[in-house]
Amino acid sequence: MADEGFLTKKFGEGVENYYSGSPLNRLAFLRTNYSYLSTALQHPSTRFLLLKNLDPLASTPSTLAFLPYTDVSNLIANPYEVSEKAALEAFTSTIDHPVLIFLGIDESAPSSDSISTPDNKYTGQAYFSLDITPYPHLSYSLKATSLLSTISQNYPSHEFKTARKDLNLNNDHAAMYASARSLTNWNVTAPYCAGCGQKTMSVHAGTKRACPPLDGGVETRKCPSREGVHNINFPRTDPSVIMAIISSDGTKILLGRQKRWPKYWHSTLAGFLEPGESIEEAVRREVWEESGVTVGRVIIHSSQPWPFPASLMIGAIGEAVPGKEEIYLGNDPELEGAKWFGFEEVKEALAFTSGLYDGPPEGYKEGGLRLPPKTAIANQLIRAVVLGGVHLASSKI
Amino acid sequence: MADEGFLTKKFGEGVENYYSGSPLNRLAFLRTNYSYLSTALQHPSTRFLLLKNLDPLASTPSTLAFLPYTDVSNLIANPYEVSEKAALEAFTSTIDHPVLIFLGIDESAPSSDSISTPDNKYTGQAYFSLDITPYPHLSYSLKATSLLSTISQNYPSHEFKTARKDLNLNNDHAAMYASARSLTNWNVTAPYCAGCGQKTMSVHAGTKRACPPLDGGVETRKCPSREGVHNINFPRTDPSVIMAIISSDGTKILLGRQKRWPKYWHSTLAGFLEPGESIEEAVRREVWEESGVTVGRVIIHSSQPWPFPASLMIGAIGEAVPGKEEIYLGNDPELEGAKWFGFEEVKEALAFTSGLYDGPPEGYKEGGLRLPPKTAIANQLIRAVVLGGVHLASSKI
Repeated sequence: MADEGFLTKKFGEGVENYYSGSPLNRLAFLRTNYSYLSTALQHPSTRFLLLKNLDPLASTPSTLAFLPYTDVSNLIANPYEVSEKAALEAFTSTIDHPVLIFLGIDESAPSSDSISTPDNKYTGQAYFSLDITPYPHLSYSLKATSLLSTISQNYPSHEFKTARKDLNLNNDHAAMYASARSLTNWNVTAPYCAGCGQKTMSVHAGTKRACPPLDGGVETRKCPSREGVHNINFPRTDPSVIMAIISSDGTKILLGRQKRWPKYWHSTLAGFLEPGESIEEAVRREVWEESGVTVGRVIIHSSQPWPFPASLMIGAIGEAVPGKEEIYLGNDPELEGAKWFGFEEVKEALAFTSGLYDGPPEGYKEGGLRLPPKTAIANQLIRAVVLGGVHLASSKI
Repeated sequence: MADEGFLTKKFGEGVENYYSGSPLNRLAFLRTNYSYLSTALQHPSTRFLLLKNLDPLASTPSTLAFLPYTDVSNLIANPYEVSEKAALEAFTSTIDHPVLIFLGIDESAPSSDSISTPDNKYTGQAYFSLDITPYPHLSYSLKATSLLSTISQNYPSHEFKTARKDLNLNNDHAAMYASARSLTNWNVTAPYCAGCGQKTMSVHAGTKRACPPLDGGVETRKCPSREGVHNINFPRTDPSVIMAIISSDGTKILLGRQKRWPKYWHSTLAGFLEPGESIEEAVRREVWEESGVTVGRVIIHSSQPWPFPASLMIGAIGEAVPGKEEIYLGNDPELEGAKWFGFEEVKEALAFTSGLYDGPPEGYKEGGLRLPPKTAIANQLIRAVVLGGVHLASSKI
């Protein structure tokens, strides 16, 4: 085979970044099969992840809490009772529904907890997420408030916790939460059609929004989004680039810092990709804008979903062009500082990392470089550059 | 250096796919500098790319036409005359403006054609794109119709041509068109705020849309998009994955075909990334959904902007898991067929490719495999897999 080893050359078994690696099979092709969804929703083994203002209900700082259907049925009844077509035709913009998302099935669950797909090919325990936030302007607000109070009585040890401050979720739960959070946020913040300004309706088990042709049985104005190829009713995921840049002599790495970060904290440069750009171009543009450094070769390392609110972090490694490595911060006010760091200093700092919202880690000496923890793709990129082989490990964290 | 050769191992100087590689510096940080934009707009050397229903004005099938300010000033006047803040405060939703985008500067232009940035650091010839489509429901419709007729009189050899059917743009022009098309399409198809349903206004030189606080001087209802971290007024770019999958024994590549494609045409599998997924996970999910094959290791190869309408194609190469390579099309109706092809058959087909809308290329034998042309990232991925070293070339096409 001409390419023997081609895949092994780079990252071995690959890097799986935090927030990726969901244990669930999304079964995307069953999202319009309301008969399956209806069965899955009400099955005694099915579990619901609750979100309040995007914070998940958690049983411990590292573990999400999952409730059965009977705990939430007062709020949602069964939205899959009629077909999606019938639901679209019955759409009434004054009646609001909490965002409910079918996350998928855990195929490793014991068969007693599993349900089968209609073709009997796949079996697993079903998971949904449900937004229980009692938004005062939505019609189900009182029901949500009442359910929240029941839940806090029935589960006194469970709490809605903020992801990057109070939680340190295990990998599986972090990945499940990432999908639930991104999709919920999109449903909640984009309830109007960008094409015509009318209210839209959550469809495809929470993964799309449709602009219905009727509102309360009355034909509303025609929406251009209903014609031709378009994506405006699909959830958005904003690609962003994050990159470890190596000096042309191969001895230093470029890191920057934002003003709001803790003292001495630095990370890789990052920014949103623009329309009409490749990832490689976005890497070069962002580095040049933020630091003045010109980047030549770029390779893509790995990626990380970043559900705050809905980014895809695309991790890259690039090489600076000789003679174009001087730092210049005058273009873009994004960074407070950017600096070339020798590999040795960075290696030392990698031994003592902690979260952005935590204090410095044990063993940290005041004044030393601080870097993002392993749950950040920035850490993986920095490792790949300064430690070489270490990034080849297949471990998730 | 511990990582000597790390970057050279994979793609040499890198693959630059068609639609990427723009010759322009976007100068993103000057998009709110209306004094600079105003000067750039009206400079005699500045050039405008015109779009009608997203088709660009072209002088030949491989070359875009660019017009000077004097040719378009009747339609746009100078939108940068007042500051962006003042423009936002003067917003009136009944007055429409054609989509005008500052694409950037060509720093290689002769100094006689160049203007300088306010800090005198960068000089180049400025490029804008302008949507001249006479949408009947917009207030400038008649002006646009009249300008279209003037242009066709003054430039009888120029024509608005459809990108993937009538054009075969050179690399630089393809990349410039990609940005203009994606951003114009987004401005035109998403004129309403997804957060509150009100009309938005194009800002940041065409690269963002704001939901103004006032409409015709009257305070409108509060829009939630004006608070906190959000992206709903940023243009959308939808990440999608496209992947060449190698059989576990390293001798075959997995290709699929859609019903609407020409006979014998096959390509790599592809699909949109979902919220909360990494690129690597999206590759595995899409391949499994569409073909039933389970993919293990995934590496990311290169990327391509795909402005139809606003995707980012992320090219990957993956390896099938031994024993899980049987084709099954029953999950997802996306593909008409999927098949493992031996490298030799694919190598032969690579010698005779043509566009999706063209007939079979010269030398093609009826019944033989047909593959996408070099302008498609699919072609580059297939090459990378079956030809090995060839993909290391730094050539753009």
